[in-house]
Amino acid sequence: MNPVTFNCTVLRDGHQSLAATRMKTADMLPIAPILDSMGFSALETWGGATIDAGLRFLKEWPFDRLDALKKAAPKTPHMMLLRGQNIVGYTNYADDVVEAFVAMSAKHGMNIFRIFDCVNDPRNMETSIRAAKKAGAQAHGTICYTTSPVHTTQSFVDMGRELADMGADAIVIKDMAGLIPPYVTHELVSALKKDLNIPVWIHTHDTAGLGASTYLSAIDAGVDACDVSISPFANGTGQPDCLRMLALLNGNSRKPDYDTDKLIEVSEMLKPIYDELGKFTSHRNEVVDSDTLRYQVPGGMLSNFRTQLKEQGMEDKFEEVFAEIPVVRKALGWIPLVTPTSQIVGVQSMLNVKFGRWKNITPQAADIALGYYGRTPAPVDPEVQKLCAEKMGKEPITCRPADLIKPDMENLRRKLAEKGLPTDDEHCVIYAMFPQQVEDFYKKPEPQPEAPAQVNAAPAAAAPSMTVIDNGI
Amino acid sequence: MNPVTFNCTVLRDGHQSLAATRMKTADMLPIAPILDSMGFSALETWGGATIDAGLRFLKEWPFDRLDALKKAAPKTPHMMLLRGQNIVGYTNYADDVVEAFVAMSAKHGMNIFRIFDCVNDPRNMETSIRAAKKAGAQAHGTICYTTSPVHTTQSFVDMGRELADMGADAIVIKDMAGLIPPYVTHELVSALKKDLNIPVWIHTHDTAGLGASTYLSAIDAGVDACDVSISPFANGTGQPDCLRMLALLNGNSRKPDYDTDKLIEVSEMLKPIYDELGKFTSHRNEVVDSDTLRYQVPGGMLSNFRTQLKEQGMEDKFEEVFAEIPVVRKALGWIPLVTPTSQIVGVQSMLNVKFGRWKNITPQAADIALGYYGRTPAPVDPEVQKLCAEKMGKEPITCRPADLIKPDMENLRRKLAEKGLPTDDEHCVIYAMFPQQVEDFYKKPEPQPEAPAQVNAAPAAAAPSMTVIDNGI
Ligand SMILES: [Co+2]
Ligand SMILES: [Co+2]
Repeated sequence: MNPVTFNCTVLRDGHQSLAATRMKTADMLPIAPILDSMGFSALETWGGATIDAGLRFLKEWPFDRLDALKKAAPKTPHMMLLRGQNIVGYTNYADDVVEAFVAMSAKHGMNIFRIFDCVNDPRNMETSIRAAKKAGAQAHGTICYTTSPVHTTQSFVDMGRELADMGADAIVIKDMAGLIPPYVTHELVSALKKDLNIPVWIHTHDTAGLGASTYLSAIDAGVDACDVSISPFANGTGQPDCLRMLALLNGNSRKPDYDTDKLIEVSEMLKPIYDELGKFTSHRNEVVDSDTLRYQVPGGMLSNFRTQLKEQGMEDKFEEVFAEIPVVRKALGWIPLVTPTSQIVGVQSMLNVKFGRWKNITPQAADIALGYYGRTPAPVDPEVQKLCAEKMGKEPITCRPADLIKPDMENLRRKLAEKGLPTDDEHCVIYAMFPQQVEDFYKKPEPQPEAPAQVNAAPAAAAPSMTVIDNGI
Repeated sequence: MNPVTFNCTVLRDGHQSLAATRMKTADMLPIAPILDSMGFSALETWGGATIDAGLRFLKEWPFDRLDALKKAAPKTPHMMLLRGQNIVGYTNYADDVVEAFVAMSAKHGMNIFRIFDCVNDPRNMETSIRAAKKAGAQAHGTICYTTSPVHTTQSFVDMGRELADMGADAIVIKDMAGLIPPYVTHELVSALKKDLNIPVWIHTHDTAGLGASTYLSAIDAGVDACDVSISPFANGTGQPDCLRMLALLNGNSRKPDYDTDKLIEVSEMLKPIYDELGKFTSHRNEVVDSDTLRYQVPGGMLSNFRTQLKEQGMEDKFEEVFAEIPVVRKALGWIPLVTPTSQIVGVQSMLNVKFGRWKNITPQAADIALGYYGRTPAPVDPEVQKLCAEKMGKEPITCRPADLIKPDMENLRRKLAEKGLPTDDEHCVIYAMFPQQVEDFYKKPEPQPEAPAQVNAAPAAAAPSMTVIDNGI
């Protein structure tokens, strides 16, 4: 069999998962050429939380990072994580904004768009898939793995088929919580490989200590590529370490050939960077998290959950709130727990326990119930939907949510012009998601002293009633 | 296929590997009945470093612990790790001492003797295997996994055959460094299962992040039992956590049925104990140790190595000393790195670098070269052997080393009597290995304030020139 290939995530998910997305471009630049020389099938260098965090905390202009990394690593395909119609923000944006974002990213050198949707609705991924292909880049259609009575191997294969029909160049299994068991992985990868004629890639996290074994199963089942990172930005809540994966594959006919001396060299270069980011790293993120196994939700969701319960004086309600999660998920059509749904479900579970079930509903949870996030994996509980419609004063929808959003680019451009800011497409798309940060960026070009951040803390969302946590996706 | 079974190591290797063997009997007693109710194929409760450390640091009489644990967990077979002719000490003892130790252990309720030898010489295991069987207990013949040009699957199967012929009730693959790759495991387990008619068990450590995947491979190849521990005394340098292994086995037809609620209950009981042992635990032991992957030696050996190099003012020689390890191993007949050979090889490598190759030889290294530890996996370098013979003024031997040791029990009894100490067989066998500690035990019945111990530090050996470190075997 042909060797499996590895994608290296250290410049994106590695530091997002283990160091609150705080690695600076300057720290990446000496490493990028070495990574570029190693033959990875992709370098994940952008997207996910890096754009928000870079702008907010590091005062880096997102496209400048991409330009710099492309220059430092010109040979290997660059890959980014894109939240479909949410781009790299936390709500749906107009099609023209999505299209412009993808076009500008491709223009700056992005080669692979890994596109997912937080409720697994392929319609929310269609615009970005089409835009990526139009720009001559690859569009990878991504399935968020989750468990529920309606999530079967067949349901995931059906979704994979839909994405392939939309033109996806590959299908990615995205296991944000690190909870997919190896034998389930084998079945799923085998089924996707059998039914679809395109490559199958897999992305997981070692949070619960399952990730490396899951990759071995995926490789046995014929997966084409796995995401790995490089220690110390690896293992734990991050991706399994590349050197470790190579050790695990000793004796396997699909073992790929990556230069271990170079891996060690990069790892030595990363150590001081990791140490420097000490206030953003945490012991808990580095070890096998038994609580994730116990509670079967993403690790980041759990730690955020505890913080919020504490803020609410509800520490003693942990088990009760936790038991409410499947109730909320079921009512909301068994949505996956991924940015931002993990946070929406977590907050709603807390409110259900505090005020009584569905007495107090967040606008986000209501929007999910009313279809404004897209088609949920199972139907929403009709009673809950009715309640949300009354509460929000709006009707449920079944169309693609972005069909209701008017083109926005010219509006954004006008706003930028009014503020005396650059009005190119790059600025429009970033401004669409992060208006305050863009203004701050131009007001204060110097990095601010950083406030000690909470572990895994990620940018606050626009919505006042909840904080969106990016669970290392 | 029949379900695999688990042995629970938390009361021995779990705390030996992650908390310097410091768990007290009093802490174990509330947990033992729960473990006893869970259906583990064995509870590892004694042996290894627990006897030395319990006596030395906790002032606990070893047989009292065994009695207490047997009473608290009467249903499940108890298992202990025995270093063959070294019993639980660091040198060879007379046959009558080995026999008495095994007989007394069995009398106090030990059911399974897991017997290994540090140079993999089955002759060093023969007396203890015979004694265990005579006492009506099970004797498990154990293969120390290591890599070298002479270690092949066939060589391990040949050793397994020898052990089976000696009467071993099962064969155990012991991977003290946590470095056996899953695919090698599959081949080895398959070969042992095919060639031998007795159960095959496996023991590893998750030090390098390979352990859990290795178990999955072993289970796929038909292994009968795996050693697991319970978090927080699990993963890292310890055995993979039981709950984690169950999660990994979801969807596998050999998944065993252990009560996850009880596992969580035990884990919650263990947390405060782990926290209380804080000065003996270390972050480094809890995470995937990339250096173990890089250097391919047991993790404990590496950290001890660094400490000793520092003491010798040789920190800058790390890579050089490290490169000397295979040279020393080769000269000494490719012995495995396990207690006490890992330490002997480590110290000799340091001396070779410091004073020139073989200019300064420890008595222990010389004894290995001269056959006093048994038959090495490959012949010893004849030049080195000649040098050692001259230096030590003694001839090489090829017989079973213990054949040269005169019966010692009556001598030990007389010495104990002279000191006014109890003279029963239990005291004789413990006194044989730890004379000073036994005297101290009777002098100072109250626990002393413990000095902060170095990470993974284990009892000092009798030999003045080196410290024996028990690498979490
Ligand atoms: Co991720
Ligand atoms: Co061990």
